This record gives sequence, C-alpha cells and structure tokens, in this order.
Amino acid sequence: MRGMTESRTGAENKPTTSRLLEPTYEGDFVLDGDLLLESGRALVKPTLHYAVYGRLNAARDNAVLVCHALTGSALVGSWWPEIFAPGAVLSLEHDFVICINMLGSCYGSTGPGSVNPSTGLPYGPNFPLVSIRDNVRAQAQLLDSLGIQRLRLVLGGSIGGMQALEWAMYDPERVERAVIIGVTPLSAMGLALNHLQRQAIQNDPDWAGGNYLPQRPPRRGLSLARQIGMLSYKSAALFEERFSRNPNRNGEDPWALDGNGGGLIGGRFDIAGYLDHQGQRFIDRFDANAYLAILRTMDTWDPLGAETTPEEAFGHIRARLSFIGISSDWLFPEADVRRFASVIRSTGVHADYREMVSDHGHDAFLAEQAELVRLLQ
Amino acid sequence: MRGMTESRTGAENKPTTSRLLEPTYEGDFVLDGDLLLESGRALVKPTLHYAVYGRLNAARDNAVLVCHALTGSALVGSWWPEIFAPGAVLSLEHDFVICINMLGSCYGSTGPGSVNPSTGLPYGPNFPLVSIRDNVRAQAQLLDSLGIQRLRLVLGGSIGGMQALEWAMYDPERVERAVIIGVTPLSAMGLALNHLQRQAIQNDPDWAGGNYLPQRPPRRGLSLARQIGMLSYKSAALFEERFSRNPNRNGEDPWALDGNGGGLIGGRFDIAGYLDHQGQRFIDRFDANAYLAILRTMDTWDPLGAETTPEEAFGHIRARLSFIGISSDWLFPEADVRRFASVIRSTGVHADYREMVSDHGHDAFLAEQAELVRLLQ
Repeated sequence: MRGMTESRTGAENKPTTSRLLEPTYEGDFVLDGDLLLESGRALVKPTLHYAVYGRLNAARDNAVLVCHALTGSALVGSWWPEIFAPGAVLSLEHDFVICINMLGSCYGSTGPGSVNPSTGLPYGPNFPLVSIRDNVRAQAQLLDSLGIQRLRLVLGGSIGGMQALEWAMYDPERVERAVIIGVTPLSAMGLALNHLQRQAIQNDPDWAGGNYLPQRPPRRGLSLARQIGMLSYKSAALFEERFSRNPNRNGEDPWALDGNGGGLIGGRFDIAGYLDHQGQRFIDRFDANAYLAILRTMDTWDPLGAETTPEEAFGHIRARLSFIGISSDWLFPEADVRRFASVIRSTGVHADYREMVSDHGHDAFLAEQAELVRLLQ
Repeated sequence: MRGMTESRTGAENKPTTSRLLEPTYEGDFVLDGDLLLESGRALVKPTLHYAVYGRLNAARDNAVLVCHALTGSALVGSWWPEIFAPGAVLSLEHDFVICINMLGSCYGSTGPGSVNPSTGLPYGPNFPLVSIRDNVRAQAQLLDSLGIQRLRLVLGGSIGGMQALEWAMYDPERVERAVIIGVTPLSAMGLALNHLQRQAIQNDPDWAGGNYLPQRPPRRGLSLARQIGMLSYKSAALFEERFSRNPNRNGEDPWALDGNGGGLIGGRFDIAGYLDHQGQRFIDRFDANAYLAILRTMDTWDPLGAETTPEEAFGHIRARLSFIGISSDWLFPEADVRRFASVIRSTGVHADYREMVSDHGHDAFLAEQAELVRLLQ
C-alpha cells in the first residue's frame, strides 16, 4: 500500500486538525462500584473514557450527549467536526458536549483489553456481553457525577443512534430531544454481516480463541472483517463512481499471468486495493476483541423484542425524537428506519422522520456531514 | 449442524431425483491439442466434462447449450429441472441439450485439481487464468466433435449468462438465440465481493498458498467465502422473512453469558445458523482452488473493456438476445442488466429485456424456476 495514503484518503477520512475542536477536557471516570449487567454478570469498577467540549452553563441546561458509532472514540470533535461548524448543530460557545467511549471499545473505556480487577488479568475473550442499556446506565453515572440532570439533546448514528434512543427510553425525564441516525434493531441481513465479520476474525489462527498476544493480533482476520463491514457502510453507486472496473491505481494488472498466489489470484482491481487499504488502516487503530465485543452489543439490541409491545417499549418516552434514514443505506435501509419511527410514533411519542439523500450509504452521516447538518437545521 | 438438514433445506436445495432428468450421456471430451489462452498461457490437452439430454435430430438443428453458474455442474437436469418441465423452456423430446462443466471447476473439466500433463503434478495455484472466451473456444471444439454447427439456443444465469453472451459474440453464425440471466460485467461492488471471498480462502492457514493437501483443504476459509457469496445471492427481504431476529432454531441463545469463544461470541441467531449450514454443505462439495479459479474468470470478463466501442464488441452479433434482470438482485442489479441490454441494443442487435420479479435475489433463477419459465415462455 506504499504511496497510497494520499490518493486513498476520501472525504470521510479527512484529517481534522483544527485547534477549535480540541476537547475542553478528556479523561477517565471510574464507576464507584460494580456495574451489574443485563447479562447477569458484572464489570468491577469499570472505567468510562470521555471527552467534553465547551462549558456547562450555570443553569446546567446546555448539555448534549453524542454517542459514537462502532469504532468511534470519545473525541467527537475529531470525527464529527462539521456538526460543530458555525451555525451547525452544536456550538462550542453555547453547548456543553459530552461524548463517552463505549464499554467494550479499545479507546479508553473498559473493554476486552482491560485488566479484570478480580483476576488481575485482561478480560480477553471472557469480556461479558455489555448491552446498549448497560452502556446507558454506566453513562448516567458519569453524567450524575458531572451534575447533569438534563440533556437538551442526545444524538448518534448507527450504534450511537441505538444509544440515543435507549437514553430516551431509560431516563425519560432527562432527555429533551434525541436524534437517531441510520439505525433500527439489526435486520437478518445485518446480523448476517456481523456473523461473517466475526468468523473472519475467529478464522485467523492468531486470534487464538481471543487469547492473542498484544504484539501478535489477528491482523488479517480483522482486516477482512473491516472490509466486509465497509461493503455494508458504502453503496454500490459510490463504489462504481469511484472505482468502476479500474485496475488498482498502483499499476497491478488483474489480467496478469501471475499475481500474488499464482494464477488463481491475479493483480487487484482498484476497489480491492481500496478495501485492503481500509483494512490496513483499521488494524493499526482497532483491537479485534473490542470489535467482537461491540458487534455483540449491536447484535443483541432489540428494544421491541418478541414479547414486548411498542407501548411497553416506547410509550413512556417524553423526548422529541427525530429519526434520519439514509437513502442509499444498505445496512439499515431507510424504509426500515422510516417504519421503525412510525412504530414508535404510533405509541403517542413525538417521532419525526427525515430522509438524508446521499449515495454514500450508511457512512453518509460521517462522510457527508454538511448534508446531515442541513437536514438537522 | 446436527439435525438441521431437513429444516434448513430451502426451495433452492430441493433434491431432484426424477428419473426423467438423467442425462442421455455424461462423459469427457479431451481437446486434441493445447488450448491457447487469452492470458498467453496454454492448457495442455484439457478435458471438458459434459452431459447431454435428449437426442440430436437428423437435421442437427435442435441443439441447446446451457451454461452453468459459478459452482454448478454439467448435470443441468439436476440443478435446473423445472426448465425441462412439460411445456417449459426445454424438451427432452424435441431438444438436444448440452451442458459443459467450466474449465477451472472441480466437476470433471480440467481445473486446479487436475494433473498438468507437462509436469505430472496438479496445477494447484499455478492453474492459469482461463477467460470466458477461452471456455467458449474450448466448448466450440466439443460441439464440433458432436457435429453441432447450429445452436437454437444458448442460455445461462450469472457466469453462465456471461458464457451465453460470449457465445453470441464469438460465433455469430452458430447461435440463433441467447438468454442471458442476471448478469453484466461485474460492477465495483461485485469485484469487491469476490475480493473478500478470495481473502477468506487465502487467510485460512490450511490454504497453504494453494498447495493444500486434498485431505486438508481450507475448510473454514471456503465456508466463509461461500457465506459472503450467499449474502450477495439472496436478498434482505428474503432473509428477513425467513429468519428475522430469531435465535438459531437449534436452541442457541444469542443473549447467553458464554457462547463458543467466551463472552465475545455468544449463541447464534437463526440467520447465522443458516449461513454456517450453507458453508458446511459447500465445503463438502466444492474445492477452494477451483472456486478461486472461477472467481477470476468472472472478475476479468468485460467484453466492452476500456478501449472497445459497443459497436466493436457487439455489433456483429446475429443471435436474438434476451436479457433477464431480477428485481431483488443485489450482485447484478436489474437496472444494470437493463442498461447493459440497452447498450447492446444500441448497436443494432436484437436484445430484449425482461424483469423477473422475485425477492429471492440473484439466486432467483435457480430458486424460482417456475417464475423464470413463465417469463421465458
């Protein structure tokens, strides 16, 4: 992938170095006691890594919680900078923005790579199932400690949207408004995609049942998992426009006699070079077990469930909800988001729906932030 | 997967035991000399395994060539039986139907598992790139040997459709009609899906650079490759209808404390059990290197190419072409098939287009044969 960094960097990977977007504070919050999980297990004094932007006002009524997506971090100013643009959704001057790394992640909160205080060893594959509700309950303790009893807004896309809706369900008194972008409970196709990604990691012998050494992680498996994910985050139209059937831009020849692996493999097409590049970037920044942990958090989120009525699940929500579906989203089709919003609306909850028209697929909420801002204004 | 065989068997896997559909003859044809390939290599006296159904009439004008899809075989009567139903597309009484296993496959024609006569060793990963055109040229020699100078019809779906169109391009005088189902040159998304499947196999340590022992093939990698493929052959709607968010029907619990692999993996959902089952079935019947070989054949097919005009590529076709797009096809979207047909039509060739409405996705031409027959009548 030599020399490709620049040419492969699309809009969604734009480096964001603006000093404006440095957090006011970034640090750890350690829960006082154990966090009892829905699964029946507990996390012993887990840590939440978080970042805040702006300042809490005297009335303490300007707090906004941003929930990050699967492989995001607490540094929302770095991955969602245009949301903070002048006149956009959030204001560093008027808002107090909090973003908290999910449990299970590898960006500072307790996850599979953390040491389990009761054993003195990393959790590794024994890291328990932490639900979206568990995350919200832990986050609530952090907000309590910051003296935040009202959230003027909770917002997030993808698994961040799951958290935003769960917040409105969990603590109806605290949430005034929630914006839920590109998400519903995972469909059968979504569960299938996660199943494939999980296998890609498990099939890598370096995964070692989750007990890999930090210096020898399952790189190829994690790269393939990411690439499977990328397919579901983007759209066919976008790939076609960007890559078409072009040979890889580094000069490889898909028609060559002998590629890597003999006659069976051949040189790569441009789309393949792009996906490999994305996989490589990812293994340098993310942990395989953390990825597995959060996939499971995502898989198991289903507020309606089999034995719950919409009224029981959602009827008590008091926040104004806004759902946003993305026209080219294949992972969470916009028609599904629209239907989900309408089920919730049918329980008497305020839940409007807006469609974001983009050919960027699921990733549009990160890749086309200006469009998203327009829709939210 | 114990006890799941019955419940997992969907319509597309229906066993076909009707005695009517036994071939009239099944055997091998060995090419007289070397087959010079577009890639510049040659296959030394390659074998084509083929099956015929019905009898060639005295006028020798009732021959039909069926081209199989990626993992199909020459036994078209077994995998496409409803095409032969009374009053359907083909008649055992009136037609002489030939189906030839693709080069690269593991169902009898020369492929990576075959012995290279010039070395005395299996080709393995050195099996060369065999193009769609190379396949057609080899098939033409077989037809010559059978005394078939006219084909009243050539038809196929997916990579079989690539061959059908290539036949009309390669030998305009021989082909009267071609039916091309659910296919165009692979889009960037299609190339991406093949790239992922290739990696799934390559990442399996048992693949051994393609030099695996027959008794120790890369089973997990091939299973994952098949599962990635399955996602693109089916549709989200079909998965939702069949599997929804149900736990695996064998009783696994996706919310369980400890699944296989500790807390990070969990019990499977039903869709995951289905995909694993499909992967298992596949590794019992197909070879990993053969799969890689045919993926490459598919990847590299692009009759238009970058430097060819539609007139140059298609203008000389004399057959009547019929293209069929499948409404829920995600791998070869029906709009792409429609557009492809219209490009060809613009060169003055007869090329009609019909849409098959089905929520079975790309597989519909195998899974909903009765529908396909209706459309072809």
